[in-house]
Amino acid sequence: MAAQRRIDLALDSVRRLQRIGATANLLNLLQKQHPADLAQIFSELPDRDREATFSLLAERNGRLAMEAVSELGPEAGAGLLATRPAEEIAKLAQEIPSDDAAALIDYLPDELSAAVLDLMRPKQSGEVENLLEYDEQTAGRIMNPHVFALNEDLTVGEAITELQTNREVEMVFYLYVVDERTHLVGVTSLRRLLLVSPETPLKRIMATDLISARVDMDQEEVARQVASYNLLAIPVVDEENKLVGVITVDDVIDVIKEEATEDIYRLAGVAGDERAFTPAGESLRKRLPWLGINLATAFMAASVVALFEGTIQQITALAVFMPIVAGMGGNAATQTLTVIVRGIALGELTWSNSRKALIKEAAVGVGNGIVLGIAAAIVVWAARGNPVLGLVLGAAMLINLIVAATAGTLVPLGLRAANIDPALASSVFITTLTDVFGFFSFLGLATVFIRFLA
Amino acid sequence: MAAQRRIDLALDSVRRLQRIGATANLLNLLQKQHPADLAQIFSELPDRDREATFSLLAERNGRLAMEAVSELGPEAGAGLLATRPAEEIAKLAQEIPSDDAAALIDYLPDELSAAVLDLMRPKQSGEVENLLEYDEQTAGRIMNPHVFALNEDLTVGEAITELQTNREVEMVFYLYVVDERTHLVGVTSLRRLLLVSPETPLKRIMATDLISARVDMDQEEVARQVASYNLLAIPVVDEENKLVGVITVDDVIDVIKEEATEDIYRLAGVAGDERAFTPAGESLRKRLPWLGINLATAFMAASVVALFEGTIQQITALAVFMPIVAGMGGNAATQTLTVIVRGIALGELTWSNSRKALIKEAAVGVGNGIVLGIAAAIVVWAARGNPVLGLVLGAAMLINLIVAATAGTLVPLGLRAANIDPALASSVFITTLTDVFGFFSFLGLATVFIRFLA
Repeated sequence: MAAQRRIDLALDSVRRLQRIGATANLLNLLQKQHPADLAQIFSELPDRDREATFSLLAERNGRLAMEAVSELGPEAGAGLLATRPAEEIAKLAQEIPSDDAAALIDYLPDELSAAVLDLMRPKQSGEVENLLEYDEQTAGRIMNPHVFALNEDLTVGEAITELQTNREVEMVFYLYVVDERTHLVGVTSLRRLLLVSPETPLKRIMATDLISARVDMDQEEVARQVASYNLLAIPVVDEENKLVGVITVDDVIDVIKEEATEDIYRLAGVAGDERAFTPAGESLRKRLPWLGINLATAFMAASVVALFEGTIQQITALAVFMPIVAGMGGNAATQTLTVIVRGIALGELTWSNSRKALIKEAAVGVGNGIVLGIAAAIVVWAARGNPVLGLVLGAAMLINLIVAATAGTLVPLGLRAANIDPALASSVFITTLTDVFGFFSFLGLATVFIRFLA
Repeated sequence: MAAQRRIDLALDSVRRLQRIGATANLLNLLQKQHPADLAQIFSELPDRDREATFSLLAERNGRLAMEAVSELGPEAGAGLLATRPAEEIAKLAQEIPSDDAAALIDYLPDELSAAVLDLMRPKQSGEVENLLEYDEQTAGRIMNPHVFALNEDLTVGEAITELQTNREVEMVFYLYVVDERTHLVGVTSLRRLLLVSPETPLKRIMATDLISARVDMDQEEVARQVASYNLLAIPVVDEENKLVGVITVDDVIDVIKEEATEDIYRLAGVAGDERAFTPAGESLRKRLPWLGINLATAFMAASVVALFEGTIQQITALAVFMPIVAGMGGNAATQTLTVIVRGIALGELTWSNSRKALIKEAAVGVGNGIVLGIAAAIVVWAARGNPVLGLVLGAAMLINLIVAATAGTLVPLGLRAANIDPALASSVFITTLTDVFGFFSFLGLATVFIRFLA
């Protein structure tokens, strides 16, 4: 059965059991769900039902309830917890790994998060506080500090015994090997342990050319390493190369999705952390600045049009067609910009090969300009019966599409070289440029050839 | 040492050794690289050097050379292979797993790929041909058909012996358990085997509620399952629930990146498979249709302006400010559209909670409209000394931003309900709508209040 259908059925049952007040059956059903499915069920329930369902489950099976809250994502998860007393949140937070707890607690209102940390058991709250001390979006912030490591002086037989006695350690893909001062010195795997005799020292079978992440490494770089070397987990070390945590591939997948969302959003002028159900007031505050900048640049473009009011006064048809030149420039520039920004994000585009990209984009711009310029010229000639008006429009479009291609390539590469996120600022720059050049080339050419247009 | 710096140093050495013709040293250096690093080195070299370097490595260490080609991605990888004779490609393709070989061979020119399949050993070419029979972007197409499975009647001790003798099986995270007719019946892990006595039958310790993918499942759905259940691999079964392959999390990461790129591109009207270095002619062919549609819709919007040529004739200032109303609508609509499209892609937005999203976006639209409308009105009043012109512009902007918010929410949700990719078609619809409504509301209001504007 497809996952979505299974969840929909469960959701229907949850709604029905809640309506008729069949608490025992409801609890039974909830306990059978996977945390990820529970998270989706929570997110589809109306606010009040969600809280009631969560309360019911949290009382009986705090761990499962909190795992589901973690799967909701830190923002929505913290929103669900925030209505509860600090004592209860503290108790529940101890049910999940401290990296997940840290992500949730970080999103609680400041006072509440301080109270929760005070009320947690010192060991757990210490771990959470340690994690929260690392900068956001770094390896230290997202790592799990419970990393299973073996001393290099153990034999394979002793290592297997260690694994058998530490039953609570979950997800052991790689076995990291450390020296007596917990410096990371090597890695091996469970499978490798089975292929050699029990007396073999770990030192002899471990691989020493292992890839690790520093606590202060950007999470995007961590994700890139895990993805390009096909790792299942990456060990995290401090500045002295001491093993302090591990980041598993499931967390890396979350980072990759988050970074892709951020890139998509930035191209459209939306804050990276906005979601479909971010409250309206917050969305408004986040989106207004970008629209404000766009308004200012729109007035800049308008001032170019104002230069030619005299020409428009004589030939009002120019007002009809000028948005076409500006708009097509914007569309073509967006295509180029998107390919370039994504190429930078995927690591395919660097300064060294940027000349090749520029030549290609310019060629595409010329090609687009010729085809679309001729098409537009013919339409205008047919509509208005004036071939010169058509030629002026076609020529202006060709010019603007070349500008669009060039700027769409150079602006993001330039921003990247200046260490500014190219996705963030490019689209405002580019559309302003194509508006200004579009109006200027079209109205300018029209002014020059005005005696053929009247 | 950071990965990028390590690669840059290696790249410098490659260039230097190639220039002085130190083949033995160059080969030595290449052999020490990780396939992912080699792929990046290849991609940064000029075409001719890339082919020379690849040839050198392929002759000595075909597997490493082909692993690097795989990491380049199927399109670029096939491009590098396509200049070689079919015999050589066939020999090299046998060095890598058949799912990776299939991805590359699929991108070779048709004649060449047929010749390569003919020349491969029957077993391998059979596997590749089987994979290529599944539809693109399905589980069957991307799975690895070499999946390690254990019979349910084995004991734990026998299972460990199997693992020790099948040394070539790589990356065993989960041990899938099948019945005598290879139906998938359960899953266990290497670690679990170590925690029970060797006489225990696998049947007793395996988990039976396992998540699997059907061969025809869309790869995006496969990725969603692996990501939401935090799996390291997902078994692939045919319609009779027979185990036929496995998809590992590293392939899922590639799918997630590919799908994110596709979403980003579609919002900008770029084909999902275009890359920064797709040849100019091909890019042109791929981008022109979308620009052509945009040109047609731009003429539609222009025809709205044409309705008001009489008004513009009297008040040319309208021509100066009308692009602002249309443009701001487009910007605001793009913000809404992006949040909604991404919300759909991430599975956060469904029909059942779409009303809530619509109310939120409408509220944001009203808020944006009031703030920006007032700001624009004041600027125009100050610039032109006519308060009514300012009011007309402000009111038109408010109307258009509400239209933008509503359409930006409803159009993608509607396309989704009609099973059309919302990212694909939304942006053309939306910008046409905001252009038409922007021009109509601004010029319409101006026509109504024309006696206060002259």
